[in-house]
Amino acid sequence: MMFDKLVIATGNFGKYKEFDEIIKSSSKDFADEIIFAPEISKLTVEETGKSYSENAMLKARTWAKQSGLPCLADDSGLEVEALDGAPGLYSSRIVMGKDCDKVSWLLSNLKGIENRKARFAASVALCVPDEYILICEGFCYGKIAEAPEGSNGFGYDPVFIPEGYEKTFAKLNPDIKNSISHRTNAFRKISNLLLRQKEHTHS
Amino acid sequence: MMFDKLVIATGNFGKYKEFDEIIKSSSKDFADEIIFAPEISKLTVEETGKSYSENAMLKARTWAKQSGLPCLADDSGLEVEALDGAPGLYSSRIVMGKDCDKVSWLLSNLKGIENRKARFAASVALCVPDEYILICEGFCYGKIAEAPEGSNGFGYDPVFIPEGYEKTFAKLNPDIKNSISHRTNAFRKISNLLLRQKEHTHS
Repeated sequence: MMFDKLVIATGNFGKYKEFDEIIKSSSKDFADEIIFAPEISKLTVEETGKSYSENAMLKARTWAKQSGLPCLADDSGLEVEALDGAPGLYSSRIVMGKDCDKVSWLLSNLKGIENRKARFAASVALCVPDEYILICEGFCYGKIAEAPEGSNGFGYDPVFIPEGYEKTFAKLNPDIKNSISHRTNAFRKISNLLLRQKEHTHS
Repeated sequence: MMFDKLVIATGNFGKYKEFDEIIKSSSKDFADEIIFAPEISKLTVEETGKSYSENAMLKARTWAKQSGLPCLADDSGLEVEALDGAPGLYSSRIVMGKDCDKVSWLLSNLKGIENRKARFAASVALCVPDEYILICEGFCYGKIAEAPEGSNGFGYDPVFIPEGYEKTFAKLNPDIKNSISHRTNAFRKISNLLLRQKEHTHS
């Protein structure tokens, strides 16, 4: 086993569940026990970074210092071509102080616009205390639906239709989302790199 | 060979030279050609990060995007116990706009203070485009001299005496500095991790 305990450094239970599934389906050797961060501390981390990678690192490092355990964190965003990459880094905060939800904000900004191309981007950071921080990026390309559909996942999932599919992330089976998502693609780069190294150390 | 070409993402020639020596003496298999960043572009990166690791990542990523090549960067600082860890993250900028040099600033702030304990801290970041960013920290413990001595190295080297030695970094043989420095300790963690993985991939 790569790690006995691994903390998912997020306060978002939907994201924790998703990582739990991604990790277990990507590799049986990665982590024995996968812990939801709020179970071990009330710590909250302000996302002050200027990139997904900075925010992911900030969360993973801060939780690793707090817990002394290996911590995995991500920061991700939806980048819409017709909106010059918005909401991007501000995906989760775009409606702060506004009386509307994120999905409605997005659909109203794309009203009448033909180009619906978008991608999800994620940076996943793994911090192993006193050893290293490893950060990988992943993407998932697709388009924005005309109206929300489905109730799986979280965030912009109800309006994101990945390439090669007709349904949104929120309507697709979570197993399908977790086999192609930006978060999965980023995590697999991390696990491939580490598990190759680990096998060698033990061989 | 791990990398055919490796860019040292700094505009400081002293730091480039030091990395060149550290890499060559730590591992013959790490990089074939080690490039001083200003030789390939006039890019400059503002150090806006809130930690050594953020600044190191920012420089490595920005240069990797610019060059398409693997890039290694560091950010480092001197942390003086009696000054509550200052100058720390601001080590290279502490005298900006002041009519004095860094070493004089430090010695005048420590005048009459008995506790001279200090450490150098470094974060080294390696960015391999489209693959990963790997960040490791290293430290070197020691004390601040009463007066500057020696002309090797750069920055605070003339006043930093590492544990187990009587001379400053600037007076010690550079080979000695490069076998024990904060930058070396951080770099070796990176190269150990990657070379183990690389050997396995090729075995």
